[in-house]
Amino acid sequence: MSGEGWVAVVGTGPAGPEWLTPETAGILEQATDLVGYGPYLDRVAAGHQRRHASDNREELARAGHALDLAAEGAKVAVVSGGDPGVFAMGAAVLEAVDRDTAGRWRDVEVTVHPGVSAMQAAAARLGAPLGADFCAISLSDNLKPLAVVERRVRLAAEAGLVMALYNPASRARPWQLGRVLEVLGEVHPPQTPVIFATAAGRGDQERLTVTTLAEADPARADMRTLVLVGIPATRVLQRPDGTLRVYTPRYYEEAE
Amino acid sequence: MSGEGWVAVVGTGPAGPEWLTPETAGILEQATDLVGYGPYLDRVAAGHQRRHASDNREELARAGHALDLAAEGAKVAVVSGGDPGVFAMGAAVLEAVDRDTAGRWRDVEVTVHPGVSAMQAAAARLGAPLGADFCAISLSDNLKPLAVVERRVRLAAEAGLVMALYNPASRARPWQLGRVLEVLGEVHPPQTPVIFATAAGRGDQERLTVTTLAEADPARADMRTLVLVGIPATRVLQRPDGTLRVYTPRYYEEAE
Repeated sequence: MSGEGWVAVVGTGPAGPEWLTPETAGILEQATDLVGYGPYLDRVAAGHQRRHASDNREELARAGHALDLAAEGAKVAVVSGGDPGVFAMGAAVLEAVDRDTAGRWRDVEVTVHPGVSAMQAAAARLGAPLGADFCAISLSDNLKPLAVVERRVRLAAEAGLVMALYNPASRARPWQLGRVLEVLGEVHPPQTPVIFATAAGRGDQERLTVTTLAEADPARADMRTLVLVGIPATRVLQRPDGTLRVYTPRYYEEAE
Repeated sequence: MSGEGWVAVVGTGPAGPEWLTPETAGILEQATDLVGYGPYLDRVAAGHQRRHASDNREELARAGHALDLAAEGAKVAVVSGGDPGVFAMGAAVLEAVDRDTAGRWRDVEVTVHPGVSAMQAAAARLGAPLGADFCAISLSDNLKPLAVVERRVRLAAEAGLVMALYNPASRARPWQLGRVLEVLGEVHPPQTPVIFATAAGRGDQERLTVTTLAEADPARADMRTLVLVGIPATRVLQRPDGTLRVYTPRYYEEAE
């Protein structure tokens, strides 16, 4: 990155520093300003950077603030949780640049840097449920009509994709996850594995539940939960120490 | 991890050490043995571990070898490129355990640890093309019939998912990527963005090509290439410095 102002969109990974990449650590060290949701900044702030904490909404406004700072010469790290390219600030910052018809941010260098996303951490804690073709679908409020969510989920299940459901606990549509699981139950058999992974990797906060489409209780999901839905080929193993491991075989099975 | 033998499945990330997590670095440091594809081991071997390099096939045999070593007391890191849970050794090691009816590996602790996957690196180098709902589909040889690949890709496109195509340069079916792009062209308009990302993040080896479904040339893909296919809402920006940025808006657009 040049000596002038820049915006680098980075991700902390879904938990502690053990999942934050060296590249991102280096960018945070160089940054003069950190912009992001407060709890994410708490994970990374070292003290020498100016903090610009916001709530977890208003992504475009936050992106514009970061770009304004950079246009004035600041070296700004926009901090997402997880991977900034997966349901996070990467797209929001580029959208702000795209809409900048006045050219205010024309000369601001914008880069995006990969991180570990929540679905990867959740999957790894239980094995490799995403080991075959898979998709990631956000149930976040207000981004798309429920009919679009339902159609998308149904087609993805018919395609035989394992599914990671982000933001399953919708504030505006609390019944949405229940409806999504119903749709999936119309495509897959009732014993298809479902995982509720809450605060994966965050020590004592972590809760991992392995269940089935027939038994899945949508009320288990809160704001820190990721829901993984397998395909019929997904396998659950009980290890002798009592722990469970879940994986989806890499190859296609006719039974699928 | 306990003092006895174990298998930890880790990933190097898709390029150099800047994308290798501290957690994985710590596991590699503790390991007595490294098992994996030679070029991945070259990225991480520190000298104090025994190396067990293999070619990039025979995943189940490699998993069994790692489990045998651990059953004898070794601390074994099974090393994948990228994220070991995404089209990599995580599922293969668990499948080997699952098939172990004789109980040889019954008491071997197996853990999987997340890493940055190739699609995340490729996406980040160009911005945030995976910024909305997306899927990852492997075109690897011999894992599924071409008819299944075609159906899966068609349904995923109809679902409006951005798509990351892993292993696009199939040895056994060199025409496969062309056929997949044809199928996508039957669903999406010809100007839909397509990215060929070869050796993303690997310095001088990196080649990034932004094109469209109409113009995409399957011959651009080699063994180190990941192909990202957008949706109609995916946007390509030309920055004043001549670089391109690609992103998919987080919200649903009716035009999609």
